[in-house]
Amino acid sequence: MSDNSVISVAFQGELGAFSFSAARKFFSPEIRVQPFENFKQVFEALSAGSVTHAVVPIENTLYGSIHENYDHLLQYDFKINGETTVRIAHQLITVPGVSFHKIRRVFSHPVALGQCRRFFEEFPQLEPVSFYDTAGSVKMLMQQQLTDAAAIASEASAEIYGGSVIRKNIEDNEHNFTRFFLLTKQMQTEEEYCSADFWKTSLVFAITNVPGALFKAMACFALRDLNLTKIESRPIREKPWEYLFYVDVIGCIEDGNVKKAILHLEELTTFLKVLGSYRPTL
Amino acid sequence: MSDNSVISVAFQGELGAFSFSAARKFFSPEIRVQPFENFKQVFEALSAGSVTHAVVPIENTLYGSIHENYDHLLQYDFKINGETTVRIAHQLITVPGVSFHKIRRVFSHPVALGQCRRFFEEFPQLEPVSFYDTAGSVKMLMQQQLTDAAAIASEASAEIYGGSVIRKNIEDNEHNFTRFFLLTKQMQTEEEYCSADFWKTSLVFAITNVPGALFKAMACFALRDLNLTKIESRPIREKPWEYLFYVDVIGCIEDGNVKKAILHLEELTTFLKVLGSYRPTL
Repeated sequence: MSDNSVISVAFQGELGAFSFSAARKFFSPEIRVQPFENFKQVFEALSAGSVTHAVVPIENTLYGSIHENYDHLLQYDFKINGETTVRIAHQLITVPGVSFHKIRRVFSHPVALGQCRRFFEEFPQLEPVSFYDTAGSVKMLMQQQLTDAAAIASEASAEIYGGSVIRKNIEDNEHNFTRFFLLTKQMQTEEEYCSADFWKTSLVFAITNVPGALFKAMACFALRDLNLTKIESRPIREKPWEYLFYVDVIGCIEDGNVKKAILHLEELTTFLKVLGSYRPTL
Repeated sequence: MSDNSVISVAFQGELGAFSFSAARKFFSPEIRVQPFENFKQVFEALSAGSVTHAVVPIENTLYGSIHENYDHLLQYDFKINGETTVRIAHQLITVPGVSFHKIRRVFSHPVALGQCRRFFEEFPQLEPVSFYDTAGSVKMLMQQQLTDAAAIASEASAEIYGGSVIRKNIEDNEHNFTRFFLLTKQMQTEEEYCSADFWKTSLVFAITNVPGALFKAMACFALRDLNLTKIESRPIREKPWEYLFYVDVIGCIEDGNVKKAILHLEELTTFLKVLGSYRPTL
């Protein structure tokens, strides 16, 4: 995806976080990255131009849509230029040479600890200890060279901080996936559009919740045989009975039918924003 | 809501968790509760009959739907008998008598710590320390009688463990709300239904994603002037191009139009389950 040497990617979390793995999938393992503490800072970095791209999680198969990032997408005028999915697999990581029977404490973010419940049931001698970040717990382990402890984090964190994976994929649920968007300040040029078969276009729109309003909005797509891969309503707290809708439609924004559907939709909505058209990265 | 003396409510988290506040809203502050470590255990407790009710979070204004609990609702044959919303407000809590300038460490779940970022920016002398649970951090503080530390948790946790709230509502975002369902094993009797004006009915259904399939499903409601308050698609990972839909419709399952809409919907779906009809508790 273009010249890696001038590309830098902002993401939330420590090096080795799942967003970092997503950034590597979009580009290459050598991609230059800038980690930030929170999502707002990631959007700010792209806005200020200190990075060329940002990678943010947008939904998870267990925890649903990350509304905070949809909110940022509405506030900042960026474009989605890519999409990928990362499996949330948890590895038990130690300082190299530490054997499993020496471990007494296991550090990780409480959400990751909670996703490895069966592992802790199987090995009751291991005490789960909350830490602020998954990858951060590997970093701490290595800095302090702890020999009675392990961390739960991604394979990439082991690699980055030089830890050893001593138990693989200890998560309870193998169907835990997070979907990420790749963001840029500018839309890609028209020449780049529609050069492949499979594109998606992501939209946000608002309608007043009178009976049939959503039905009419859906008609814009159905009447043109356009297929949706996501629809989600979200109440607007400040405006009772108005709803935001997140919609992903198969097709590129430059396709005639997609263009016409959006023009039609504009007649029916109180607000509409195209977040981007992109080819999914497998 | 019926005789409190025979009612007991399962919820996830420590006493004082936000689910506990939801249970109190459904019944009374004196309601008998049983805390569990995870959602699965909450559903198991109701299934085994060791409690009469369960209270589970189903969606959050910032983090979206809690798919895990939708999954449990599909697996267990319970009924939703109530709905309420709790504002996620964070309090700074200490052992009584501890003054603010003595505090150096602040314990809480990392998600709660992350939701009080502005507070930590304002008081850089305070070190955020990850803990497995918000209410649990108050419990620990009180047990160990820490005088240089505070916890971030709900007002109810301060009350339960005897802590003092020394800074109120330190959360960054005041629009953070969680919606909870009240679950029972049996549906309420028909006599209890439709006795008030405002009811909601929650459904889950599956359709194959051919163009227009969702449009037809929406027609079942629109043609009967029924209003939706939620719609959300969720890909079924094992079946590409099949989607689950979560829908909330205004109206009681005993209303003629709602009944007919569901019969109509059954013609179009590969799977349909009514999760319950209920009156929201404000």
